[in-house]
Amino acid sequence: MGRASKGRDVAAATPVVILVRPQLGENIGMAARAMLNCGLSTLRLVAPRDGWPNEKAQRAASGADIVLEKAEVFDSVGEAVADLERVVATTARNRELAQRIVTPRQAASDMRGWIGQGDSIGILFGPERTGLENDDMVHADTALSIPLNPQFSSLNMAQAVLLVAYEWSAAGDTTPPARMADHATRPATKEELQSLFDHLERALDQSGFLRNKEMRPSMVLNLRALLQRAEMTEQEARTFHGVIKFLSKSKHEE
Amino acid sequence: MGRASKGRDVAAATPVVILVRPQLGENIGMAARAMLNCGLSTLRLVAPRDGWPNEKAQRAASGADIVLEKAEVFDSVGEAVADLERVVATTARNRELAQRIVTPRQAASDMRGWIGQGDSIGILFGPERTGLENDDMVHADTALSIPLNPQFSSLNMAQAVLLVAYEWSAAGDTTPPARMADHATRPATKEELQSLFDHLERALDQSGFLRNKEMRPSMVLNLRALLQRAEMTEQEARTFHGVIKFLSKSKHEE
Repeated sequence: MGRASKGRDVAAATPVVILVRPQLGENIGMAARAMLNCGLSTLRLVAPRDGWPNEKAQRAASGADIVLEKAEVFDSVGEAVADLERVVATTARNRELAQRIVTPRQAASDMRGWIGQGDSIGILFGPERTGLENDDMVHADTALSIPLNPQFSSLNMAQAVLLVAYEWSAAGDTTPPARMADHATRPATKEELQSLFDHLERALDQSGFLRNKEMRPSMVLNLRALLQRAEMTEQEARTFHGVIKFLSKSKHEE
Repeated sequence: MGRASKGRDVAAATPVVILVRPQLGENIGMAARAMLNCGLSTLRLVAPRDGWPNEKAQRAASGADIVLEKAEVFDSVGEAVADLERVVATTARNRELAQRIVTPRQAASDMRGWIGQGDSIGILFGPERTGLENDDMVHADTALSIPLNPQFSSLNMAQAVLLVAYEWSAAGDTTPPARMADHATRPATKEELQSLFDHLERALDQSGFLRNKEMRPSMVLNLRALLQRAEMTEQEARTFHGVIKFLSKSKHEE
């Protein structure tokens, strides 16, 4: 309805990372790198302690300069989020403020839903050491807390940005969970495998390995199960034929 | 069967992080911190460039010293994985080696399954800049590749360890994906909410806001939907009663 008229390219939209009162330029630079690794490039800074631009940030961002070049600076959180429709605020502390708190994975799912509806989103990260104040948190729809080891929870700013950005990225990632490495050959067909089984069993029969008639059926099945499980490529099956051939030719000396 | 006799405490078992030919002590220390944040504390080092112990590693590990204290050093990958039943090797490169490649999320799922069966697991990370060689990769059951921005893929060693460890941790995490912040009061009951609706609608009727008889039913429903969506606590409902009461008492001046 109103969204299309804002001319937003929903397919390209990504959440805005907002660093609130960041202290060290180096951390801003590293946060920019963390973002870009995960496909985020829109950065806003609220009252950076050492001003802007910041040479230490630029040095630490090496390669991710584009993120710093496009970064916008604001004086307050309110101004930084004014044009956004959804805000997620990261927190490490238990708070008295009554907010919905989500895991990074749930936040990523929420954000993908919002982006799909055309909403613009900001993710707030607080100053090193102190984190966001309640006055910052209250600008958010949702709080986000990264589940960590209760005995040792000590992420730096760039690592927190990395994990949240990574979950966002993973939620939209189409990489298959498991795949075979790129390689020149295809899996062996079941016929090729059967031919390998036959060759192996012939050689084993000839060598006497399968001479026990009662045990033979289960031994054969177990060998076949093993070879099936290897998920051999066509080339590997051919190689294995060679292994069997040469082993059975050799005079094996104990 | 044989597993129980090994006396393994499956509930406490975690994967072993194995840094292969790590170059900078500082990176080893930061990797130790990344591990501990996610509940991993067993570290093995293969031929660390600057030997062991390493002062720079100790300084960078501050707080995660326990991981370095327990760390074991080996001369080769083969020796480092000898007692393990499963090995996952992280890689950023496309390889000619025919291996199954999984995402960190899938690896975490695989590892949880293996741990549950009593298998011991190692995760290999390669040297900074060059990564693992094929000779290292071939010790693994599975390769792991972190899906990153094809235009900017530049994680440092500790960040790669962090993401893999995080996925492991998330796969076993029982934190609810979404929850209300800890607070002293409970959600308002539906009866308490209805009482709030009644109060608000009485006040709005008296003020003339709902005077349009045709529009009234849908306006009332929309207001109720909004208030339902607020997921008010019992205390917030009481506060809102106060807001309505005081607003309707005041002489509102335009």
